[in-house]
Amino acid sequence: MSKSAEQKINAIVIGAGGVGVVTAYSLYHNGVAEVSLVTRSDYDHVVEFGYKLESCDYGQIDSWKPHNVYKTVEDASAAEKFFDYIIVTTKNIPDGPKDSTVHAILKPVIESNHELDPKKLTNVVLVQNGIDIEKEVLEHFEKSTYNLCLLSGVQLIASTKVGPGHVVQKGKDNVSFGSFDKTDEVAVEQAKKLASIYHNEGHNTGAFDDNVRRTRWNKLLYNAAINTTTALVGLDVSRCFEFASKKESTEFGIFRPAMQEIAAIAASENIAIDEDLIEFFNEEVRNIMYKPSMCVDVENGRLMELEILLGNPIRTAKANGVQTPTLCLLYNLLILVQNKLKEQKKLIEFNEETLKLVV
Amino acid sequence: MSKSAEQKINAIVIGAGGVGVVTAYSLYHNGVAEVSLVTRSDYDHVVEFGYKLESCDYGQIDSWKPHNVYKTVEDASAAEKFFDYIIVTTKNIPDGPKDSTVHAILKPVIESNHELDPKKLTNVVLVQNGIDIEKEVLEHFEKSTYNLCLLSGVQLIASTKVGPGHVVQKGKDNVSFGSFDKTDEVAVEQAKKLASIYHNEGHNTGAFDDNVRRTRWNKLLYNAAINTTTALVGLDVSRCFEFASKKESTEFGIFRPAMQEIAAIAASENIAIDEDLIEFFNEEVRNIMYKPSMCVDVENGRLMELEILLGNPIRTAKANGVQTPTLCLLYNLLILVQNKLKEQKKLIEFNEETLKLVV
Repeated sequence: MSKSAEQKINAIVIGAGGVGVVTAYSLYHNGVAEVSLVTRSDYDHVVEFGYKLESCDYGQIDSWKPHNVYKTVEDASAAEKFFDYIIVTTKNIPDGPKDSTVHAILKPVIESNHELDPKKLTNVVLVQNGIDIEKEVLEHFEKSTYNLCLLSGVQLIASTKVGPGHVVQKGKDNVSFGSFDKTDEVAVEQAKKLASIYHNEGHNTGAFDDNVRRTRWNKLLYNAAINTTTALVGLDVSRCFEFASKKESTEFGIFRPAMQEIAAIAASENIAIDEDLIEFFNEEVRNIMYKPSMCVDVENGRLMELEILLGNPIRTAKANGVQTPTLCLLYNLLILVQNKLKEQKKLIEFNEETLKLVV
Repeated sequence: MSKSAEQKINAIVIGAGGVGVVTAYSLYHNGVAEVSLVTRSDYDHVVEFGYKLESCDYGQIDSWKPHNVYKTVEDASAAEKFFDYIIVTTKNIPDGPKDSTVHAILKPVIESNHELDPKKLTNVVLVQNGIDIEKEVLEHFEKSTYNLCLLSGVQLIASTKVGPGHVVQKGKDNVSFGSFDKTDEVAVEQAKKLASIYHNEGHNTGAFDDNVRRTRWNKLLYNAAINTTTALVGLDVSRCFEFASKKESTEFGIFRPAMQEIAAIAASENIAIDEDLIEFFNEEVRNIMYKPSMCVDVENGRLMELEILLGNPIRTAKANGVQTPTLCLLYNLLILVQNKLKEQKKLIEFNEETLKLVV
């Protein structure tokens, strides 16, 4: 079946940073989907000039406009469109400002979908890092009431917004889509369909993933051990390896113990982590000059994705009786950094007279 | 015996920051000692104008000059004076620049003393933080050859140099002096003598300490657990307590475990830590708005006293088979921060092409 013979689907991408814009373009590229994009800060620019993309996957595109551009999710919900796929590419910070949490972002469009057609399937696609991120959505929206499929997207890409409406993509885009619940056959079919729409042969890669949780736990090896450490010490990955005592204390005193604890938590959830990945992350990653996201966030005074990368696995460990001393200490330190960032952003207030948080 | 009846002693203070200047003034105050001070950066100013002291112990002093001022330890050694007490008030960073290590600072004056009178006693007084700091001195100077007494000074004071030759002391000065080796009777007597010279009734406190190692291990409870943590997260002590998860993860997930490990190492050295101090540090210190030294050092791009506060106790733990997972992880993280500071100060060089340290 050719793609053009498929029924036109309606997709909205929420989160128009360097990653979200390329994600939207990839969906747009093969002409099967009507693509909407929510962009608050670049709205006026994009409506007038469109996006300038410099993409290793698609070449240079001087003025691209999605089919629809909205300034807010509320505006999108007011457009009276049913969105088959609601794709979230924002950072996932459940402890951040209330209006930026994933469930708050989703609320207007999930509800407008429900009003427009309560029988039709709404796919919520979380193209985000971390583990157990689907739980927040399910806590706020009853699956059967809203006729939801919860899909996972794990993305590898290097793309940065360098100016208003200007995105430079340097690393090829590769997204694996799957159903958070692998026993949910309807969602599995929806994930396969989305992967096929997303994939543009010769350009990017969209693939179906039949075991989303394993994929996410695998990726957590890196994020819970390495991403976290770089955020605490403010160094890229190569320097973390090289600046170690005897050039080995980072690997053997932080990274590997933290990764083994992640593997133990995964095992307690009946997920067998690929142990080769632990070797890969310690043998190969040191040779790539790279500053992970949490480190960059701290440097830029932005909140970190701490809870979905470290808080959630630690909570699972506690529930399952798995000892995680390394992860816990990293978390206990990083929660202080997160709150330092929150104070800088005036999300919390510390009273220097009483020495207490102002509630 | 009145102090004036004692034989005049010759003391040199090396390290003329906010603390060192008050230390020199306290020695000077009762007229028993001839006091020399080494100050590189303020030398010209002090020779011309003297020091301006605003001291909670001594009131305001507009122009105080020590008996002798030297720009360098080499200049002091060339003065052909025998220094009975060589008092070091610099930071102690054995992994820092070679010419700033304690043994390098001591060398010229220990050697000139030896040349002037090899039979006379030289007291080396380390008014510095940390544990096992006397070992570096003994490794470089044979005790019997140089006729050395190694004395310890543990100081409580809040004093800051606010400008050239201008020191503001806000917290009262209290130094306990003792012999690092409590079985060395000669050194014990020298420590008692120094305490009596240093003490100025109604002003400061100089006291004799008969168990220096216990005092230093006690103080390490604070420095190895709290000082280190604040340096990693860049927050004062009160915020570290208050920003914790459920307001308790810092105390129960970092501070107390780290302190218990310090107590266990001390116990392996037959030193009984005062457990009340663990309660004190967790109950009282949270109520004092204070940014510890390592945190301030990181903020100012200065190297931390990491090895004497954390490296040394961890090495003792390893030698004695004591498990210290919390301290080790803090150390493995802080060594990365220390090397980041070293790179900033161009003490080490990282090649971003090879991703290796340049040796």
